[in-house]
Amino acid sequence: MDETIKGSQSLIFRNAPYLISAASVTGSKETEGPLGKLFDMTSEDDLFGAQTWEEAESTMQKEACVLALGKAHVAPEEVRYLFGGDLLRQGIATSMGVEGLQIPMFGLYGACSTSGEALALAAMSAAAGYGEYMLAVTSSHFGSAEKEFRFPLGYASQRPLSAHWTVTGSGAFLVRSQERAEQGGTAQECLAGGRTAEGSARQEKAGQKSHVRIAGVTVGKIVDYGLKDSQNMGACMAPAAMDTIVRNFEDMGRTEQDYDRIITGDLGYVGQSILFDLVRGKGFDIRERHLDCGMTIFDQQTQDTHAGGSGCGCAAVTLASFVLPKIEKGEWKRVLFVPTGALMSTVSFNEGASVPGIAHGIVLEHC
Amino acid sequence: MDETIKGSQSLIFRNAPYLISAASVTGSKETEGPLGKLFDMTSEDDLFGAQTWEEAESTMQKEACVLALGKAHVAPEEVRYLFGGDLLRQGIATSMGVEGLQIPMFGLYGACSTSGEALALAAMSAAAGYGEYMLAVTSSHFGSAEKEFRFPLGYASQRPLSAHWTVTGSGAFLVRSQERAEQGGTAQECLAGGRTAEGSARQEKAGQKSHVRIAGVTVGKIVDYGLKDSQNMGACMAPAAMDTIVRNFEDMGRTEQDYDRIITGDLGYVGQSILFDLVRGKGFDIRERHLDCGMTIFDQQTQDTHAGGSGCGCAAVTLASFVLPKIEKGEWKRVLFVPTGALMSTVSFNEGASVPGIAHGIVLEHC
Repeated sequence: MDETIKGSQSLIFRNAPYLISAASVTGSKETEGPLGKLFDMTSEDDLFGAQTWEEAESTMQKEACVLALGKAHVAPEEVRYLFGGDLLRQGIATSMGVEGLQIPMFGLYGACSTSGEALALAAMSAAAGYGEYMLAVTSSHFGSAEKEFRFPLGYASQRPLSAHWTVTGSGAFLVRSQERAEQGGTAQECLAGGRTAEGSARQEKAGQKSHVRIAGVTVGKIVDYGLKDSQNMGACMAPAAMDTIVRNFEDMGRTEQDYDRIITGDLGYVGQSILFDLVRGKGFDIRERHLDCGMTIFDQQTQDTHAGGSGCGCAAVTLASFVLPKIEKGEWKRVLFVPTGALMSTVSFNEGASVPGIAHGIVLEHC
Repeated sequence: MDETIKGSQSLIFRNAPYLISAASVTGSKETEGPLGKLFDMTSEDDLFGAQTWEEAESTMQKEACVLALGKAHVAPEEVRYLFGGDLLRQGIATSMGVEGLQIPMFGLYGACSTSGEALALAAMSAAAGYGEYMLAVTSSHFGSAEKEFRFPLGYASQRPLSAHWTVTGSGAFLVRSQERAEQGGTAQECLAGGRTAEGSARQEKAGQKSHVRIAGVTVGKIVDYGLKDSQNMGACMAPAAMDTIVRNFEDMGRTEQDYDRIITGDLGYVGQSILFDLVRGKGFDIRERHLDCGMTIFDQQTQDTHAGGSGCGCAAVTLASFVLPKIEKGEWKRVLFVPTGALMSTVSFNEGASVPGIAHGIVLEHC
């Protein structure tokens, strides 16, 4: 068995790729929240100059990709593969959003866990030497998500306190394969992901150095506790988050002590307390190291966001704007990033199906 | 640059994984078609004993996975990752279908190209040594697709002759990493995807030998010629098929002469003629080597299927039942399998967006 593999759901990369740049684009409500000043681009107009919510979401994706590429001075044609997804039916926000970049692409769906899925596949592809640059992007939009899953905004329907507020935002991440030169290892160790001397020179020039590596991944399984309340996504997703976190600990021989932060996507206040209980039942206590993007991006008291933020964009923009800079600076040495998704549609909900969850774990390390 | 890479969209695997087993599950209309006798499992009841079309589709996916695993004597817990998708909003047919297998999974969306996307990622993961077994599965169902994209069946709406008939079917494929023993290469060449002696012994016993390898992939870009007619998917997808086929030729230094068959997913009669014209415009002539799964699975004259079959299941079950046995036997030595997808939703269509296409190429070789 290859040495990159430990356990049955996780990979630890021998040639851990770098996360060299990230970008966040958000709407107006996110800008008014605690992280407001950290986002790369925001718009007072949540339509982003478009005619529909769906087009607005596509616009955000495109801008996030262009910003992430621009920060690293990488042209779209240099990117080998793009991994992207969103919450909408048939992933149209992504299809229409990234179309203009003309990067060979893999469309994904993992509900709000999609940023983890995209980062995992981008890192796996880069670590395998399938190309130098991989791009991961996800988005969500309050207007398009309410229309897709609940009611059009014009209905002004009441929301229970367990409901989430879908984040209007898109995050894009550029992953680069590890360099032969930097690695300094044997030819065998650096078999994949090597770069030419020319490429190295250009990289020095453009300041593409990064101190964040994707050291490993824990790919999630579908976890179904039988819950059926689509207005309480936190409860539906918490078992999946627990499963992936505990599995990561077991696969990698770690405990919560080995991570500076364990960051879930959008469990919110309800899901967080369930997660703490479930994880404690497995013999771990993550309370002092846990952070939830959905609870970080909005101020629940003043922004009336109930359980917290959610959506493919929630974890993505929080990672890009708030988490990665801390790892880059070395404030956090190792972080387990675990976006969580609730697998459902209006059809499955109306037909009485339960709402299972899935969560993917990404190990981010300062280097 | 790693030697597995040539060109900018394609990969040629140094450790090309094997496609060791495949299974097809279909509905009643498919059973009455030209390939009827080749499917592994069919049902006279298109509900497959379930209460809804969506549950029926999930049932097909589950059965296809169980059959593919059973043929190779591999247990679900031995499979490292599952790559799956379908046409429905938020991919619920897959989520509910594979949930019971409890395999760490990546949810995909690539419209009718999803079987190509799933096979590409499964092969990439196996070739990189990320695990011994990878499972790829896709499905579609006439009942759930009509409800999702057009009208509920009860409306008995008229269909134009350019429209496709969504295949009720699911195909599952088990991909295995290449063995150290079989490869007989240097340690460096076989760095990824090695197996233990114990594993080899078991494999001999179970008869897992396969004569089909996934030699390479060409990942597709989104191609948009501005067409907006969702009832003429063949025309919308043909440019993407052309782009991927020609790109494959260029990346790998090949022509149509290097393939025994070039097999598209579901272009149908309308899309095929457009594809021939577009490919000829690039200096290639694939007419004598082309086969379209959508034109193969139904008898247009007697089955009233208009342009031909379509859906994630169309290419998947045709590959599993009709194409792979011919490669296995050596009747066809090298095949370029190119499932094609039309990227749209009812929302994007109603909002006036165009219907871009995407197609992924999988190089299958007899060995």
